[in-house]
Amino acid sequence: MTDPASGSSAQTYPGSKGLAVGQKFVSGTYALDAEQIKTFAALYDPQPFHLDEVAAQDTFFAGLAASGWQTAAITMRLVVTSGIPLRDGIIGAGAEVSWPQATRPGDVLQVFSEVVAVKPSRSRPGWGIATLRSETLNQRREVLQILVAKLVAEIATEV
Amino acid sequence: MTDPASGSSAQTYPGSKGLAVGQKFVSGTYALDAEQIKTFAALYDPQPFHLDEVAAQDTFFAGLAASGWQTAAITMRLVVTSGIPLRDGIIGAGAEVSWPQATRPGDVLQVFSEVVAVKPSRSRPGWGIATLRSETLNQRREVLQILVAKLVAEIATEV
Repeated sequence: MTDPASGSSAQTYPGSKGLAVGQKFVSGTYALDAEQIKTFAALYDPQPFHLDEVAAQDTFFAGLAASGWQTAAITMRLVVTSGIPLRDGIIGAGAEVSWPQATRPGDVLQVFSEVVAVKPSRSRPGWGIATLRSETLNQRREVLQILVAKLVAEIATEV
Repeated sequence: MTDPASGSSAQTYPGSKGLAVGQKFVSGTYALDAEQIKTFAALYDPQPFHLDEVAAQDTFFAGLAASGWQTAAITMRLVVTSGIPLRDGIIGAGAEVSWPQATRPGDVLQVFSEVVAVKPSRSRPGWGIATLRSETLNQRREVLQILVAKLVAEIATEV
Protein backbone atom coordinates (compact mmCIF):
# COMPACT_ATOMS: atom_id res chain seq x y z
CA MET A 1 0.00 0.00 0.00
CA THR A 2 1.20 3.49 -0.75
CA ASP A 3 1.78 5.41 2.42
CA PRO A 4 -1.19 7.76 2.61
CA ALA A 5 0.65 10.22 4.83
CA SER A 6 2.81 13.02 3.60
CA GLY A 7 5.46 15.11 5.29
CA SER A 8 5.09 17.29 8.29
CA SER A 9 4.50 20.98 8.28
CA ALA A 10 6.53 23.64 10.01
CA GLN A 11 6.39 23.56 13.79
CA THR A 12 6.31 26.34 16.29
CA TYR A 13 7.31 23.91 19.02
CA PRO A 14 10.69 24.80 20.50
CA GLY A 15 12.36 21.42 20.79
CA SER A 16 11.80 19.12 23.72
CA LYS A 17 11.37 21.60 26.53
CA GLY A 18 7.81 20.65 27.20
CA LEU A 19 4.37 21.97 26.38
CA ALA A 20 3.13 25.46 27.22
CA VAL A 21 -0.18 27.22 26.74
CA GLY A 22 -0.51 28.84 23.36
CA GLN A 23 1.83 26.54 21.46
CA LYS A 24 0.38 25.57 18.09
CA PHE A 25 1.15 22.63 15.87
CA VAL A 26 0.24 21.78 12.30
CA SER A 27 0.52 18.17 11.16
CA GLY A 28 1.28 16.65 7.81
CA THR A 29 -1.58 15.25 5.74
CA TYR A 30 -3.24 11.87 5.33
CA ALA A 31 -5.18 10.88 2.23
CA LEU A 32 -8.06 8.50 2.94
CA ASP A 33 -9.62 6.30 0.30
CA ALA A 34 -12.58 3.92 0.23
CA GLU A 35 -10.45 0.80 0.69
CA GLN A 36 -8.89 2.14 3.89
CA ILE A 37 -12.34 3.02 5.21
CA LYS A 38 -13.65 -0.49 4.52
CA THR A 39 -10.57 -2.22 5.95
CA PHE A 40 -10.81 -0.33 9.23
CA ALA A 41 -14.56 -0.87 9.40
CA ALA A 42 -14.29 -4.62 8.85
CA LEU A 43 -12.02 -4.85 11.87
CA TYR A 44 -13.51 -2.29 14.21
CA ASP A 45 -16.82 -0.83 13.08
CA PRO A 46 -18.59 -3.27 10.74
CA GLN A 47 -21.68 -1.31 9.79
CA PRO A 48 -23.13 -0.95 6.27
CA PHE A 49 -22.38 2.79 5.97
CA HIS A 50 -18.68 2.10 6.63
CA LEU A 51 -18.39 -1.09 4.57
CA ASP A 52 -20.17 -0.74 1.26
CA GLU A 53 -20.92 2.21 -1.04
CA VAL A 54 -24.22 0.80 -2.26
CA ALA A 55 -25.57 -0.28 1.11
CA ALA A 56 -24.49 3.08 2.53
CA GLN A 57 -26.81 4.99 0.19
CA ASP A 58 -29.93 4.19 2.16
CA THR A 59 -28.48 5.04 5.56
CA PHE A 60 -28.09 8.12 7.75
CA PHE A 61 -24.85 8.94 5.93
CA ALA A 62 -26.28 8.61 2.39
CA GLY A 63 -22.95 7.25 1.17
CA LEU A 64 -19.76 5.64 2.38
CA ALA A 65 -18.33 7.32 5.49
CA ALA A 66 -15.39 6.52 7.71
CA SER A 67 -15.88 5.33 11.27
CA GLY A 68 -15.39 8.22 13.66
CA TRP A 69 -12.85 6.04 15.42
CA GLN A 70 -10.84 5.89 12.21
CA THR A 71 -10.85 9.68 12.01
CA ALA A 72 -9.62 9.67 15.62
CA ALA A 73 -6.94 7.08 14.87
CA ILE A 74 -5.68 8.98 11.81
CA THR A 75 -5.62 12.15 13.87
CA MET A 76 -3.43 10.36 16.41
CA ARG A 77 -1.11 9.18 13.66
CA LEU A 78 -0.73 12.68 12.30
CA VAL A 79 -0.09 14.15 15.74
CA VAL A 80 2.42 11.42 16.61
CA THR A 81 4.32 11.41 13.34
CA SER A 82 4.31 15.06 12.46
CA GLY A 83 2.30 17.05 14.91
CA ILE A 84 4.06 17.27 18.25
CA PRO A 85 7.67 16.22 18.85
CA LEU A 86 7.48 15.09 22.48
CA ARG A 87 10.58 13.11 23.41
CA ASP A 88 8.77 10.69 25.69
CA GLY A 89 5.76 10.22 23.53
CA ILE A 90 2.19 11.37 23.45
CA ILE A 91 0.26 9.66 26.19
CA GLY A 92 -3.45 10.31 26.48
CA ALA A 93 -5.32 10.06 29.76
CA GLY A 94 -8.65 10.87 28.20
CA ALA A 95 -10.40 13.00 25.64
CA GLU A 96 -13.58 14.57 24.41
CA VAL A 97 -14.22 13.96 20.76
CA SER A 98 -16.93 15.08 18.38
CA TRP A 99 -17.50 14.53 14.71
CA PRO A 100 -19.36 17.51 13.23
CA GLN A 101 -19.21 16.07 9.74
CA ALA A 102 -18.56 12.64 8.25
CA THR A 103 -15.14 11.76 6.88
CA ARG A 104 -15.51 10.61 3.26
CA PRO A 105 -13.42 8.72 0.69
CA GLY A 106 -11.04 11.16 -0.96
CA ASP A 107 -10.72 13.37 2.08
CA VAL A 108 -7.20 14.55 2.90
CA LEU A 109 -6.90 15.03 6.64
CA GLN A 110 -4.71 17.51 8.47
CA VAL A 111 -4.62 18.35 12.17
CA PHE A 112 -4.33 21.81 13.72
CA SER A 113 -3.57 21.68 17.44
CA GLU A 114 -3.14 24.15 20.26
CA VAL A 115 -2.16 23.71 23.89
CA VAL A 116 -5.01 25.32 25.81
CA ALA A 117 -4.07 24.44 29.40
CA VAL A 118 -1.28 22.88 31.42
CA LYS A 119 -1.33 21.60 34.98
CA PRO A 120 2.04 20.68 36.48
CA SER A 121 2.39 17.40 38.35
CA ARG A 122 3.03 17.71 42.07
CA SER A 123 4.96 14.48 42.26
CA ARG A 124 6.96 14.49 39.03
CA PRO A 125 8.93 17.67 38.31
CA GLY A 126 8.80 18.83 34.71
CA TRP A 127 5.72 16.77 33.95
CA GLY A 128 2.02 17.39 34.12
CA ILE A 129 -1.28 17.23 32.28
CA ALA A 130 -1.55 19.29 29.10
CA THR A 131 -4.88 19.92 27.43
CA LEU A 132 -4.55 19.87 23.67
CA ARG A 133 -7.35 21.00 21.36
CA SER A 134 -7.04 19.51 17.89
CA GLU A 135 -9.20 20.14 14.86
CA THR A 136 -9.04 17.63 12.05
CA LEU A 137 -9.88 19.27 8.73
CA ASN A 138 -10.21 17.99 5.20
CA GLN A 139 -8.88 19.63 2.04
CA ARG A 140 -11.96 21.86 1.88
CA ARG A 141 -11.27 23.12 5.42
CA GLU A 142 -14.37 21.33 6.68
CA VAL A 143 -14.08 20.31 10.33
CA LEU A 144 -14.34 16.53 10.59
CA GLN A 145 -13.37 16.16 14.22
CA ILE A 146 -12.77 18.26 17.30
CA LEU A 147 -10.64 16.55 19.93
CA VAL A 148 -9.83 17.96 23.34
CA ALA A 149 -7.32 15.58 24.89
CA LYS A 150 -5.61 15.39 28.25
CA LEU A 151 -2.00 14.38 27.74
CA VAL A 152 0.52 13.12 30.26
CA ALA A 153 3.49 15.16 29.05
CA GLU A 154 6.49 17.25 29.81
CA ILE A 155 5.42 20.75 30.75
CA ALA A 156 7.54 23.81 30.06
CA THR A 157 8.94 25.06 33.34
CA GLU A 158 8.96 28.76 33.98
CA VAL A 159 12.30 30.51 33.88
CA MET B 1 -5.94 -14.47 11.48
CA THR B 2 -8.11 -16.17 14.01
CA ASP B 3 -11.09 -14.04 14.82
CA PRO B 4 -10.32 -12.62 18.25
CA ALA B 5 -13.97 -11.98 19.03
CA SER B 6 -16.32 -14.48 20.56
CA GLY B 7 -20.09 -14.63 20.72
CA SER B 8 -22.41 -12.16 22.24
CA SER B 9 -23.89 -12.29 25.68
CA ALA B 10 -27.52 -12.21 26.59
CA GLN B 11 -29.28 -8.92 25.91
CA THR B 12 -31.88 -7.11 27.87
CA TYR B 13 -32.70 -5.01 24.82
CA PRO B 14 -36.22 -5.62 23.60
CA GLY B 15 -35.75 -5.77 19.86
CA SER B 16 -35.66 -2.72 17.64
CA LYS B 17 -38.06 -0.40 19.42
CA GLY B 18 -35.37 2.13 20.31
CA LEU B 19 -33.25 3.02 23.30
CA ALA B 20 -34.61 3.96 26.71
CA VAL B 21 -32.96 5.06 29.94
CA GLY B 22 -31.87 2.17 32.10
CA GLN B 23 -31.39 -0.38 29.33
CA LYS B 24 -28.22 -2.39 29.84
CA PHE B 25 -26.13 -4.33 27.37
CA VAL B 26 -23.28 -6.79 27.73
CA SER B 27 -21.07 -7.48 24.72
CA GLY B 28 -19.16 -10.54 23.66
CA THR B 29 -15.41 -10.66 24.27
CA TYR B 30 -12.31 -9.74 22.28
CA ALA B 31 -8.90 -11.27 22.98
CA LEU B 32 -6.03 -8.91 22.24
CA ASP B 33 -2.49 -10.10 21.61
CA ALA B 34 0.83 -8.35 21.07
CA GLU B 35 0.70 -8.69 17.28
CA GLN B 36 -2.64 -6.93 17.07
CA ILE B 37 -1.34 -4.14 19.28
CA LYS B 38 1.71 -3.63 17.07
CA THR B 39 -0.26 -3.80 13.83
CA PHE B 40 -2.68 -1.11 14.95
CA ALA B 41 0.14 1.02 16.32
CA ALA B 42 2.16 0.85 13.10
CA LEU B 43 -0.81 2.28 11.22
CA TYR B 44 -2.24 4.74 13.72
CA ASP B 45 -0.11 5.31 16.81
CA PRO B 46 3.54 4.53 16.02
CA GLN B 47 5.17 5.08 19.39
CA PRO B 48 7.72 2.78 21.06
CA PHE B 49 5.43 1.69 23.91
CA HIS B 50 2.87 0.45 21.37
CA LEU B 51 5.33 -1.08 18.88
CA ASP B 52 8.03 -3.03 20.66
CA GLU B 53 8.18 -4.92 23.96
CA VAL B 54 11.82 -4.12 24.62
CA ALA B 55 11.65 -0.42 23.75
CA ALA B 56 8.47 -0.18 25.83
CA GLN B 57 10.27 -1.20 29.02
CA ASP B 58 11.89 2.18 29.53
CA THR B 59 8.75 4.22 28.91
CA PHE B 60 5.82 5.53 30.93
CA PHE B 61 4.04 2.21 30.37
CA ALA B 62 6.96 -0.03 31.43
CA GLY B 63 5.92 -2.63 28.86
CA LEU B 64 3.91 -3.03 25.69
CA ALA B 65 0.52 -1.33 25.86
CA ALA B 66 -2.24 -0.85 23.31
CA SER B 67 -3.05 2.56 21.91
CA GLY B 68 -6.05 4.00 23.69
CA TRP B 69 -7.59 4.46 20.26
CA GLN B 70 -7.34 0.71 19.70
CA THR B 71 -9.17 0.10 22.97
CA ALA B 72 -11.81 2.53 21.71
CA ALA B 73 -11.99 0.82 18.32
CA ILE B 74 -12.33 -2.65 19.87
CA THR B 75 -15.03 -1.30 22.16
CA MET B 76 -16.89 -0.05 19.09
CA ARG B 77 -16.54 -3.44 17.44
CA LEU B 78 -17.94 -5.20 20.47
CA VAL B 79 -20.85 -2.79 20.77
CA VAL B 80 -21.63 -3.01 17.06
CA THR B 81 -21.33 -6.78 16.69
CA SER B 82 -22.78 -7.95 19.96
CA GLY B 83 -23.60 -5.05 22.19
CA ILE B 84 -26.61 -3.17 20.92
CA PRO B 85 -28.88 -4.38 18.12
CA LEU B 86 -30.00 -1.09 16.60
CA ARG B 87 -31.62 -1.64 13.24
CA ASP B 88 -30.25 1.51 11.62
CA GLY B 89 -26.79 1.30 13.10
CA ILE B 90 -24.86 2.92 15.88
CA ILE B 91 -23.97 6.46 14.90
CA GLY B 92 -21.85 8.53 17.23
CA ALA B 93 -22.06 12.31 17.33
CA GLY B 94 -19.34 12.58 19.94
CA ALA B 95 -17.97 11.05 23.11
CA GLU B 96 -15.93 11.46 26.24
CA VAL B 97 -13.35 8.75 26.69
CA SER B 98 -10.84 8.01 29.43
CA TRP B 99 -8.32 5.24 29.91
CA PRO B 100 -7.82 4.59 33.64
CA GLN B 101 -5.45 1.71 32.96
CA ALA B 102 -3.42 0.52 29.98
CA THR B 103 -4.69 -2.30 27.79
CA ARG B 104 -2.06 -5.06 27.64
CA PRO B 105 -1.28 -8.10 25.48
CA GLY B 106 -3.38 -11.01 26.70
CA ASP B 107 -6.25 -8.84 27.85
CA VAL B 108 -9.72 -10.08 26.97
CA LEU B 109 -12.03 -7.13 26.54
CA GLN B 110 -15.74 -6.98 27.24
CA VAL B 111 -18.07 -4.00 27.23
CA PHE B 112 -20.81 -3.24 29.74
CA SER B 113 -23.13 -0.45 28.60
CA GLU B 114 -26.10 1.43 29.98
CA VAL B 115 -28.35 4.06 28.45
CA VAL B 116 -28.14 6.98 30.88
CA ALA B 117 -30.12 9.65 28.99
CA VAL B 118 -32.29 10.10 25.94
CA LYS B 119 -33.37 13.29 24.22
CA PRO B 120 -36.00 12.94 21.49
CA SER B 121 -35.49 14.74 18.21
CA ARG B 122 -37.97 17.51 17.46
CA SER B 123 -37.72 17.09 13.73
CA ARG B 124 -37.52 13.33 13.33
CA PRO B 125 -40.18 11.32 15.20
CA GLY B 126 -38.90 8.18 16.91
CA TRP B 127 -35.30 9.37 16.81
CA GLY B 128 -33.10 11.35 19.14
CA ILE B 129 -29.81 11.49 20.97
CA ALA B 130 -29.11 8.70 23.45
CA THR B 131 -26.26 8.92 25.93
CA LEU B 132 -24.60 5.57 26.40
CA ARG B 133 -22.07 4.90 29.16
CA SER B 134 -19.81 1.97 28.39
CA GLU B 135 -17.11 0.44 30.54
CA THR B 136 -14.54 -1.75 28.83
CA LEU B 137 -13.16 -4.32 31.26
CA ASN B 138 -10.52 -7.00 30.96
CA GLN B 139 -10.72 -10.56 32.28
CA ARG B 140 -9.66 -9.37 35.74
CA ARG B 141 -12.52 -6.86 35.80
CA GLU B 142 -10.06 -3.99 35.60
CA VAL B 143 -11.53 -0.93 33.91
CA LEU B 144 -9.54 -0.12 30.78
CA GLN B 145 -11.84 2.51 29.34
CA ILE B 146 -14.87 4.56 30.24
CA LEU B 147 -16.77 5.91 27.28
CA VAL B 148 -19.77 8.22 27.45
CA ALA B 149 -21.06 8.53 23.92
CA LYS B 150 -23.82 10.52 22.29
CA LEU B 151 -25.59 8.37 19.74
CA VAL B 152 -27.95 9.36 16.98
CA ALA B 153 -30.48 6.57 17.45
CA GLU B 154 -34.03 5.41 17.60
CA ILE B 155 -35.55 6.36 20.92
CA ALA B 156 -38.23 4.30 22.59
CA THR B 157 -41.50 6.16 22.36
CA GLU B 158 -43.72 6.28 25.37
CA VAL B 159 -46.92 4.28 25.23
